[in-house]
Amino acid sequence: MRVRNKPWANDFINEHSEYIIENPEAYLGKWKTRFDNNNPIHIEIGSGKGQFIVGMAKKNPNINYIGIEIQKNVIAMTLQKVVSEELNNVQLINTDGKSVDNFFKLGEVQKIYLNFSDPWPKKRHIKRRLTSPEFLKTYYQILNNSDEIEFKTDNRGLFEYSLMSLNNFGLIFDHVNLNLHDSEELGDNVETEYEAKFKEKGPIYKILAIVNK
Amino acid sequence: MRVRNKPWANDFINEHSEYIIENPEAYLGKWKTRFDNNNPIHIEIGSGKGQFIVGMAKKNPNINYIGIEIQKNVIAMTLQKVVSEELNNVQLINTDGKSVDNFFKLGEVQKIYLNFSDPWPKKRHIKRRLTSPEFLKTYYQILNNSDEIEFKTDNRGLFEYSLMSLNNFGLIFDHVNLNLHDSEELGDNVETEYEAKFKEKGPIYKILAIVNK
Repeated sequence: MRVRNKPWANDFINEHSEYIIENPEAYLGKWKTRFDNNNPIHIEIGSGKGQFIVGMAKKNPNINYIGIEIQKNVIAMTLQKVVSEELNNVQLINTDGKSVDNFFKLGEVQKIYLNFSDPWPKKRHIKRRLTSPEFLKTYYQILNNSDEIEFKTDNRGLFEYSLMSLNNFGLIFDHVNLNLHDSEELGDNVETEYEAKFKEKGPIYKILAIVNK
Repeated sequence: MRVRNKPWANDFINEHSEYIIENPEAYLGKWKTRFDNNNPIHIEIGSGKGQFIVGMAKKNPNINYIGIEIQKNVIAMTLQKVVSEELNNVQLINTDGKSVDNFFKLGEVQKIYLNFSDPWPKKRHIKRRLTSPEFLKTYYQILNNSDEIEFKTDNRGLFEYSLMSLNNFGLIFDHVNLNLHDSEELGDNVETEYEAKFKEKGPIYKILAIVNK
């Protein structure tokens, strides 16, 4: 997803350092101090325009959410939502998902969300998929036994690959949904912007996988 | 799948004891003598009218196939095909899939096929699904490390369940296909009668899982 350049993004981000973190490495092992409570921390890697993370944060005030998003113009849109809702359980990091183990210590995060990640369909780009073994190893560094990885996508190839990759990595499937929007589970679903747009065009796939250490 | 009663089925089966085995327990550990060669043995549990197993046997003359099917009127239709093709690499057993470990010793079978098994959608019938842990335990008794279980279905609920069940049992996913008839893999596919009829109505799902001991 690419969005138009937003000339205001930089200034807006600089004005809201209470929500968006310049130096996430500095919080390694100290995230509870940043939120000033002991609530569980869930992160979304590739949080996009933020409809999901903001929706989840409003729905679950006793969970802290951290959105990680590489595109400045996109994370600025999440920041707008967080500011206008005055949410105190959301923090944002403007970077890619490669190095989450530089930001979080083992046990500091209880759940990782991956929503409609870039499918990187070409074989030579497999390592860039957020469900590749390379990324799973990083998540494994920060998650304890019984912690969770939840993944939604409308991309069939990416979901086929991810079922294989998560299984091969030794994660335990809690449940799999091959058509989320035609299922009982839909009642609990918080949509992403992308999902709202593409849910009519084909099935949305979802898996909840549990860490087994 | 139910078919009309076939008054000729009993007599036809009795006439062809070279293909259909009355006492499969007697061959425990001795299947190579029944086929009179050392080729690998693949079994299909719920072989239905036999289009799949007969198609596979013609395509792979160096693999021995054993079809297991509970319905006499249905297995009689497979027997007709085997007799008319004069296949020497197919044997049939007229029973259910519950007790394959009474018929085969560990290492005697290299691959198990499950095609369009009864979905048993009600929760209280989960144990009857051919991919439930109860059945997987039985398959595990006869398969060695690296042996294979291949499963096709058009039933979304059964496939979601099976992905979970096979994963939870510790099987390794070799690949998953969420729309077999819209994929490169289709070229190698041997259809079942049911598949030929229902492939236009929705996706056919497939998984190849590897035993990990």
